[in-house]
Amino acid sequence: MVSLASMSTSTLHKGVNVPKISRKCYSEFMSCSNLICKQSSVLSKVKPVSYDLSKSQFFLTKNPVDWEQTQKNLQCHSLSTERRCSFSIGEKFQLDDVIEGQQFDRDILNAIFEVARGMEKVEKNSPESQILKGYIMATLFYEPSTRTRLSFESAMKRLGGEVLTTENAREFSSAAKGETLEDTIRTVEGYSDIIVMRHFESGAARKAAATASIPIINAGDGPGEHPTQDDIKDYLTSKGVKWSESTNLMEVASECDVVYQTRIQRERFGERVDLYEEARGKYIVDRKVLDVMQKHAVVMHPLPRLDEITVEVDSDPRAAYFRQAKNGLYIRMALLKLLLVGW
Amino acid sequence: MVSLASMSTSTLHKGVNVPKISRKCYSEFMSCSNLICKQSSVLSKVKPVSYDLSKSQFFLTKNPVDWEQTQKNLQCHSLSTERRCSFSIGEKFQLDDVIEGQQFDRDILNAIFEVARGMEKVEKNSPESQILKGYIMATLFYEPSTRTRLSFESAMKRLGGEVLTTENAREFSSAAKGETLEDTIRTVEGYSDIIVMRHFESGAARKAAATASIPIINAGDGPGEHPTQDDIKDYLTSKGVKWSESTNLMEVASECDVVYQTRIQRERFGERVDLYEEARGKYIVDRKVLDVMQKHAVVMHPLPRLDEITVEVDSDPRAAYFRQAKNGLYIRMALLKLLLVGW
Amino acid sequence: MVSLASMSTSTLHKGVNVPKISRKCYSEFMSCSNLICKQSSVLSKVKPVSYDLSKSQFFLTKNPVDWEQTQKNLQCHSLSTERRCSFSIGEKFQLDDVIEGQQFDRDILNAIFEVARGMEKVEKNSPESQILKGYIMATLFYEPSTRTRLSFESAMKRLGGEVLTTENAREFSSAAKGETLEDTIRTVEGYSDIIVMRHFESGAARKAAATASIPIINAGDGPGEHPTQDDIKDYLTSKGVKWSESTNLMEVASECDVVYQTRIQRERFGERVDLYEEARGKYIVDRKVLDVMQKHAVVMHPLPRLDEITVEVDSDPRAAYFRQAKNGLYIRMALLKLLLVGW
Repeated sequence: MVSLASMSTSTLHKGVNVPKISRKCYSEFMSCSNLICKQSSVLSKVKPVSYDLSKSQFFLTKNPVDWEQTQKNLQCHSLSTERRCSFSIGEKFQLDDVIEGQQFDRDILNAIFEVARGMEKVEKNSPESQILKGYIMATLFYEPSTRTRLSFESAMKRLGGEVLTTENAREFSSAAKGETLEDTIRTVEGYSDIIVMRHFESGAARKAAATASIPIINAGDGPGEHPTQDDIKDYLTSKGVKWSESTNLMEVASECDVVYQTRIQRERFGERVDLYEEARGKYIVDRKVLDVMQKHAVVMHPLPRLDEITVEVDSDPRAAYFRQAKNGLYIRMALLKLLLVGW
Repeated sequence: MVSLASMSTSTLHKGVNVPKISRKCYSEFMSCSNLICKQSSVLSKVKPVSYDLSKSQFFLTKNPVDWEQTQKNLQCHSLSTERRCSFSIGEKFQLDDVIEGQQFDRDILNAIFEVARGMEKVEKNSPESQILKGYIMATLFYEPSTRTRLSFESAMKRLGGEVLTTENAREFSSAAKGETLEDTIRTVEGYSDIIVMRHFESGAARKAAATASIPIINAGDGPGEHPTQDDIKDYLTSKGVKWSESTNLMEVASECDVVYQTRIQRERFGERVDLYEEARGKYIVDRKVLDVMQKHAVVMHPLPRLDEITVEVDSDPRAAYFRQAKNGLYIRMALLKLLLVGW
Repeated sequence: MVSLASMSTSTLHKGVNVPKISRKCYSEFMSCSNLICKQSSVLSKVKPVSYDLSKSQFFLTKNPVDWEQTQKNLQCHSLSTERRCSFSIGEKFQLDDVIEGQQFDRDILNAIFEVARGMEKVEKNSPESQILKGYIMATLFYEPSTRTRLSFESAMKRLGGEVLTTENAREFSSAAKGETLEDTIRTVEGYSDIIVMRHFESGAARKAAATASIPIINAGDGPGEHPTQDDIKDYLTSKGVKWSESTNLMEVASECDVVYQTRIQRERFGERVDLYEEARGKYIVDRKVLDVMQKHAVVMHPLPRLDEITVEVDSDPRAAYFRQAKNGLYIRMALLKLLLVGW
């Protein structure tokens, strides 16, 4: 789920009164973030990788109209964040489906994080590990995404639930015979209590949710919701967020609280391997970057990672990307709980 | 499982003393059916879609010898049904394998339906939801059929059982190295308590059952058991069932209790797309057909459906096809229970 | 897991004080084996199929440098075994990962067999059937091996554990995007408690184990650990094991305790179908071979089997290959228990 994978990486805020006991996993992301630096993927359709928690979010993608022009846009961005917190733990909300990032405001995200913190503490064979006993989740994946699927399935099983899996629904299922998504959903909802869906078409999750009488979680539906770099700039400006662009990674890294690195996606370059090679080597987070980073800052990455972060960074306590993946599990556990049994 | 998918759609009988409380799901199919109308798929190897419960069943398929001749055979059939009921709930039977429709007589089918009715009432975390705890079902699919597989797996899990899954046994397993089906079965029976099998070769399920010391459920084995249209006519005649053919869908629909629509299977037409296009548009169940249908009648379909039933029909209470799919789940739960732990 | 599949077939030892009650399944393999006969696969990269329990093991593979020369090496081997037993049941050991056969000495193997014997007696819904409740095993298969995967998954489920499955990680996962195995392991270990891994590259399992903080079981990693025929001869000689080669199957079979047959792997012959055809028919275990075999001797095979053992052998009580597969399940149950909860 695009937005979900992102959510787990998006607690880039501050001022939240986090109880000491639950700071263990989230502390990096909870620490005061004034500046953030992220490598801009030069091509369109890059997934959003963080969300607006404190009106300081950024999305960096670019529609490649002109390859030469695009090259110039490969740069490092830093932006300031506000300090604000409005989440009150006592507030409840009703979650019916998880379709897109925009459905969550800061309060809901904080509430989900609060539940996720509880999930970190679920012990094997404790009563909490059985709260979804008897529930069945169907992972209806029209294109494979093993990492995402395993994370959801692990989340479901850690809460005592059961899983029905289809990893290649596009080729294998009735979809190949021309069945509509709505018909498939109507059938699968008879077999399960919640559907985690990944689809190749933009808007598929929303369509499924409109049909289904059970909750739908969007684990990605095509290139949907991926604003261009210009969209983001406009958005940030409209929200009054101060931001700047830079091509000097070292300088920005020294000021940021979070260096959010992403993979340059070769699959977006088609046959222009030369441009890919040029782009991928431009900003590498390595030991030298670590050396200038602040002590409390973290390096994040949605994974998979190629060599845009060197392995020498892995052992540094500021390397947060594997913890980040693990936190995605707790977020998914929280969402499953909220969708199936509520608060 | 061909015959199973069919069974759930085949309670086209009458006179059964159905307890009021269990009429919820089956009532459409339990109501007095005197006439039934079904679109004839013009080509051979179409699966049988209903079974003989009251000696009034029909199978409508046609071996396409002559394409032009075949076209003329695309017609709508109606037939009368007898009223008879011989099932006594107290009767028990021993079920070892589920291989083909012919192994079930009316009494056994009614007994299975009786168990299926109980399955509708299985609540999450009730003792009944754990009757197959500790049992393992292997879904050994030599060709993928996601819908069927998910339905069986959901059935197993709803009764507390576990599942081992192979969706593409043909390509992945030792079969690719030339292992016989018998050897594969002997190995897999060591890992599981029941095997649900789908195979591309006619007779494979029977062969597996002859080898296995655990129950086998046939979830489809190639073009097996698919009588031609002429076979059916002969069969019905030999059973003394009155039947007639018609090319007037509106007329027949107005008289029938059940309009059983099926998909025209494009995959059977090869390169004759023109013939497929001509055939598929011939009988469409739409609002106009609904308008002439009796109030108590139902529209059934084994799914997946393309446009042979228009979506405007879906919201009509007489549209039974999604309930039909859900009922297939209860039938599968019943079969798993009967095969693994008996009555 | 290559070594594991082998282990279950490798209890070719003697002198162990096996309690009467547990001799049921292992007795064939536990009986005094003085001589063993095994068809030599003529080509390289054949998996090892038995292990050194009494310093009498053999591996028979051959690097095909010269096809004509290779043909001559297709022969039947017999070798003597020592009689020695040093296993004391009271001894415990710590098992962290299962990577290769060499990590096990005779004592550890005997200890594993002891636990495996207990696994044969685990009843459905007994407390023993829940010892891995709450644990999650990920089967991370970079190349499909349905038989091996189902066996591990059955083992895990029979002990109450849960399973996350990827059957085609190579194509589907982040590996296709260039992610290193180490990164994948770091992510998947966040979702599971143990990883059963099959990989196409030699040494992959060892690499994974070095990275992971959870146990890794090697379910095969490429052509690793497959000594050539000459290596084996050298090894046996260096260990002081008496061995001999023969091209007379009947003669050797009449002397052996174990006839260990293997499949001639067509996939290793490339386009030389003629050589494959010549090789595969050379040594067939059939009724005639059975007739000369000793009464207590057994025929083993790692499966899948083509026609190198004829089906007429299956019904003979000395045909041990299907029991052998079932015993692999108990070995896997034992390993999972030892790795996850210890003794």
